Amino acid sequence: MDSALQTGFIGLGVMGNAMAGHLLTAGYSLGVYTRTEQKAKNLVDAGAQWFADPASLAKNCDVIFTMVGYPSDVEEIYFGPKGILEHAKPGTLVIDMTTSSPALAQKIYAEAKKRGIDALDAPVSGGDIGAKNATLTIMVGGEEASFQRAKPFLEALGKTIIRQGAAGAGQHTKMANQIAVAGNLVGAVEAITYARSAGLDPRTVLLSIANGAASSWQLSNMVPRMLDSNFAPGFYVKHFLKDLRIALESAEQMGIEMPFLSLAKNLFEKLTEEGFSELGTHALYLLYEKGLL
Amino acid sequence: MDSALQTGFIGLGVMGNAMAGHLLTAGYSLGVYTRTEQKAKNLVDAGAQWFADPASLAKNCDVIFTMVGYPSDVEEIYFGPKGILEHAKPGTLVIDMTTSSPALAQKIYAEAKKRGIDALDAPVSGGDIGAKNATLTIMVGGEEASFQRAKPFLEALGKTIIRQGAAGAGQHTKMANQIAVAGNLVGAVEAITYARSAGLDPRTVLLSIANGAASSWQLSNMVPRMLDSNFAPGFYVKHFLKDLRIALESAEQMGIEMPFLSLAKNLFEKLTEEGFSELGTHALYLLYEKGLL
Repeated sequence: MDSALQTGFIGLGVMGNAMAGHLLTAGYSLGVYTRTEQKAKNLVDAGAQWFADPASLAKNCDVIFTMVGYPSDVEEIYFGPKGILEHAKPGTLVIDMTTSSPALAQKIYAEAKKRGIDALDAPVSGGDIGAKNATLTIMVGGEEASFQRAKPFLEALGKTIIRQGAAGAGQHTKMANQIAVAGNLVGAVEAITYARSAGLDPRTVLLSIANGAASSWQLSNMVPRMLDSNFAPGFYVKHFLKDLRIALESAEQMGIEMPFLSLAKNLFEKLTEEGFSELGTHALYLLYEKGLL
Repeated sequence: MDSALQTGFIGLGVMGNAMAGHLLTAGYSLGVYTRTEQKAKNLVDAGAQWFADPASLAKNCDVIFTMVGYPSDVEEIYFGPKGILEHAKPGTLVIDMTTSSPALAQKIYAEAKKRGIDALDAPVSGGDIGAKNATLTIMVGGEEASFQRAKPFLEALGKTIIRQGAAGAGQHTKMANQIAVAGNLVGAVEAITYARSAGLDPRTVLLSIANGAASSWQLSNMVPRMLDSNFAPGFYVKHFLKDLRIALESAEQMGIEMPFLSLAKNLFEKLTEEGFSELGTHALYLLYEKGLL
């Protein structure tokens, strides 16, 4: 390679693809890698450079974003033999935007530090729509200087961009987000199950309850989908279960009791066992509707 | 008595007092009774007529509102020897605005019907502020004709006034509301407990999570109070526990499983056992903060 690319993006799923596109649109040169090459086509057509593995991308990009599926994927992409940390130049900035484990984020940070690489954890909320419209909320953990370096790039991807603390703090914040989501969702599901069992019209019930002390994004946005039996993801059951497991594991490591989080994890495990892992999180309603509890 | 009063109000706590005041302001003649006579003073000063017991009020008022504490109070005021049903004239309209049991609402309706009395259950949400500003949400169960008759009066008390179905439907709707509230509250408490344990600043976390998929009234309004250790009620733990017990009992009668509702009831029982029943519902946070789970 003659000169380094300004940015690199690994993991071009629905969200990663949209986010990488914003980097191109913002005028940054971009390298891309993802498991299924076809998924990079639109970006390569728009001027991105394809790399055959994380190692070659890492060698040739100054700021590297990763947005993959599970902590095990993050582990492999950062620590594997063809991984980023082994091959990136000193001075590189790596930003993991996957929702992943806080402990893993700290491990990446520590190993990167040894090699003169800056590392941030920066998971997001806002879903595919937020990714498409560059309105994501980005929760960042890591050093302040790395955060300042990352900021212009992150501003191409999201709107609410906050450094929450040291390495791992972004992931911890996302876990807090997911716990609150779980409460709102489980509460909405049981409220509507109750209403329906009592012979009420759940849509009319929403008119009475959706704007007061019971109000939540989940109640207003997900209940109508449940009632339409529209369980297309939104946010996948399988990914939410992953997040709840990470959150519970972290809570256990911190020695705190989280009885609701345990219950929520059990409910989503049950939902997965029943074969609903590819549906949206609001498919939790099916456990109740079908009497599968 | 020469001529009947247009309205009567039984139960002049913080909410009932404000609501009864709106009836006076709207120009209705008003009779009042409450256990502690002193609590009626402002209303009597403003023109309301005091009655020494529910029986004498019932004899002299055309439309009777009740807003008391527990289902046992409702039971006594409607079915006791000095109760409303024994003493109200045929053609009276009775409206129970207490959050109480759907089964009891149906029992009042049935007994009232036998006596030629119209009955509605009409619990509210919106709290003391909603009562003061006449912005309550009123969830009504009972016959459509009774609802139409009640409407002008209810419009003096609230803004969102919806008939949800037959007798009991108002109470069932309120139960659905409380279940959703519980989910949002428990989720918010565990999210903030997690964040704090992880060493994050919970107020900064709120900036990242309070406006997306995790958003709820409880998260935005109650978490700041928790963090200020301001546990003044808002809504009392003791009343919320009553509501959760009614909801769970109703769910059991309907034969539906509500694992989260069971957990929420257990948490609020624990909170009560620990001596926090006179605090606001967000004092649930203390169970976690003080390691009392």
